[in-house]
Amino acid sequence: MKKAKPIGPIPAGYASLDCELAIAGAKASVLADEHGSPLFVYSKNHLDSRIEALRDAMPGRLHIHYAMKANPYAPVLSHMAGLVDGIDIASGGELQMALNAGAAARQISFAGPGKRDDELLAAIRAGITINIESPNECDRALAIGKKEGLKPRLAIRVNPDFDLKGSGMKMGGGAKQFGMDVDLVVTTVQKILAADAHWRGFHIFAGSQALKTDAIIEAQAQTIGLAARLSEEIGLSPEHVNLGGGFGIPYFPGDEPIDVVRIGAALQEQFSKLPEILSNTQFALELGRYLVGEAGVYLTRIVDRKKSQGEIFLVTDGGLHHQLAASGNFGTVIRRNYPAAIATRYDQAADEVVSIVGCLCTPLDLLSDRAEMPTAEVGDIVAIFCAGAYGATASPANFLGQGPAKEILVG
Amino acid sequence: MKKAKPIGPIPAGYASLDCELAIAGAKASVLADEHGSPLFVYSKNHLDSRIEALRDAMPGRLHIHYAMKANPYAPVLSHMAGLVDGIDIASGGELQMALNAGAAARQISFAGPGKRDDELLAAIRAGITINIESPNECDRALAIGKKEGLKPRLAIRVNPDFDLKGSGMKMGGGAKQFGMDVDLVVTTVQKILAADAHWRGFHIFAGSQALKTDAIIEAQAQTIGLAARLSEEIGLSPEHVNLGGGFGIPYFPGDEPIDVVRIGAALQEQFSKLPEILSNTQFALELGRYLVGEAGVYLTRIVDRKKSQGEIFLVTDGGLHHQLAASGNFGTVIRRNYPAAIATRYDQAADEVVSIVGCLCTPLDLLSDRAEMPTAEVGDIVAIFCAGAYGATASPANFLGQGPAKEILVG
Repeated sequence: MKKAKPIGPIPAGYASLDCELAIAGAKASVLADEHGSPLFVYSKNHLDSRIEALRDAMPGRLHIHYAMKANPYAPVLSHMAGLVDGIDIASGGELQMALNAGAAARQISFAGPGKRDDELLAAIRAGITINIESPNECDRALAIGKKEGLKPRLAIRVNPDFDLKGSGMKMGGGAKQFGMDVDLVVTTVQKILAADAHWRGFHIFAGSQALKTDAIIEAQAQTIGLAARLSEEIGLSPEHVNLGGGFGIPYFPGDEPIDVVRIGAALQEQFSKLPEILSNTQFALELGRYLVGEAGVYLTRIVDRKKSQGEIFLVTDGGLHHQLAASGNFGTVIRRNYPAAIATRYDQAADEVVSIVGCLCTPLDLLSDRAEMPTAEVGDIVAIFCAGAYGATASPANFLGQGPAKEILVG
Repeated sequence: MKKAKPIGPIPAGYASLDCELAIAGAKASVLADEHGSPLFVYSKNHLDSRIEALRDAMPGRLHIHYAMKANPYAPVLSHMAGLVDGIDIASGGELQMALNAGAAARQISFAGPGKRDDELLAAIRAGITINIESPNECDRALAIGKKEGLKPRLAIRVNPDFDLKGSGMKMGGGAKQFGMDVDLVVTTVQKILAADAHWRGFHIFAGSQALKTDAIIEAQAQTIGLAARLSEEIGLSPEHVNLGGGFGIPYFPGDEPIDVVRIGAALQEQFSKLPEILSNTQFALELGRYLVGEAGVYLTRIVDRKKSQGEIFLVTDGGLHHQLAASGNFGTVIRRNYPAAIATRYDQAADEVVSIVGCLCTPLDLLSDRAEMPTAEVGDIVAIFCAGAYGATASPANFLGQGPAKEILVG
């Protein structure tokens, strides 16, 4: 028998009811019976309390944006649009979803290295802010604006000359497809001004999924410094600076949450000593995963329990087609377990080691690798936590003819 | 400037026409203009010639099955159904697609570790073969058959006590969620016979994406040996033995194609000395990737060309949402380049090093990392080869609001 592997930490805010996992007061089995399985359950309570705690920690003048790529499920998006100060989108498809969710065009900004002309056109017509990623894209946006007789709202996405240390994905500090190198920024802004378009400011995104509080504080200070330096060179104050995001959430054993109170205090200190050129600038944080990741739980029902060579497998009706990251993205070298539980035996002590797998015909469809769990049977429900971000849409839903999971917003 | 990285070998059968890549006689630019981009182009010619060469190499009595999970695009599936002897499915969704494509129920068999009751019911009603993965699944299938007054057609999926050496994914040779351990097989077949259901034989799948000819030959011999041993224990001849597949295709620099002529000759030798109990058994190979992988090309148009810190990026309108494996599955440790080309400059010599990226706002959306290519401009079309298998449906099509690529079958 091989050794058990630890699972990641279950996020705060999940309780039990009649010995079962309850999400916003609803029992997992009731939710799965009513809505079917597999099922993504998102909780309004979680979304609300996360935003509230963040606002409490951050300076009052700071705007909070939601990067909808993390979770574009329409009811979640509508709810978020009412809680945040801006929606950040990454495609023409997301633009339509954001408008449908009731976001005001002035609230929306669009980043992405491969914007097609039809996406630029839709963005300019809608009057949203476009984060310009290259001189070529700037030329295309200005030409479309001129042809349409509209004044595009353009910010410059800067490829920063530093990175966010300890981030899961570095988005600056080297040659990158995102934004433009610092030495191209001033001439591009001059081109925008010369064309009588609307220059909005900067978008500077150094990395994502960081769990090191000090690294986030340092990157934010560097970002403000870079925005100040570029603004001085341009000789104009930017209306708006998007400081990026990068706030990670704990997924794996040993991961610790970031300290937003300390980040907020450091940002307040930065704001208290801003250079004159940024004194009236509106700053924003762009967060996706941090806002919604812990608010989602994936529920999947056990359809088989089997033994192979002494090891126990719980086979579920879900899998990597909905939970690609939890399964290890088609084969990572060091596979670690997301937080998971037998939702229908939430209070029961672990008494066996099991692997929880999906229904797909591939050995990569592994939701929990040799985890310690209470003994579960066919019909029991498994919960995978941290399913609120980059779950449903970041997974190949139609793989093996399966189709998407249902999603609901509760509480 | 960093060093160039090699790309994988472009499959045989792709030619140029007016200096452009042509697929079944159609130029890439014509296809992209007519059907839009990004676009998956599959070629009937390739499918036909691959099957023909395989049939020539294999013993006449061997059946060839198509594992439709590799590419379920309806026109491809219909075409394949006319070329092969069986369609292997992995879900109730695939069952419906296979029937819609004109496959006869007798041609279809269903494997997958997490079959739900509604999928078993649909399979029994349709009269297809179910590859039973566990004693529990056997009980459920027999109960459904009894309730419906139908005689289920059941084969046993065996978790072999050996693996396919050098395979990309091992599906046997250890504790696995697939099939049942050898020691459970006899009693399960006895249960099937006692229930007056139809015992079809065995399904034994040792691994997939193997490029070692000798390893495939060895695994096939072991599979036949295991089928003979189990049949002797049961005391009955199996009608059918699915030998699995595992035939890989070259994706990466240095990969060499398998030698199907040698595999066919070895299989012929095995067939010439079969034990009596298997002398009338119908053997089949189950192949997916090998049949369709090289028959597909993904075309995506360049929407930006930019420099960052001296490196050139070609930004396309496609990306990992259609080509997850080519991009490295959300971050592999050693990322290697699939075969790729500038389709609209197919005859031109490489003269620069570029990274070809997708349009998604993540650094993981990388189609070719620092590849040597002819100088390409906005509007040129990039081809990613080996896109016929595990492309469209094994990628998160709705990520960042993008949606699926178009697909066409030509030639």
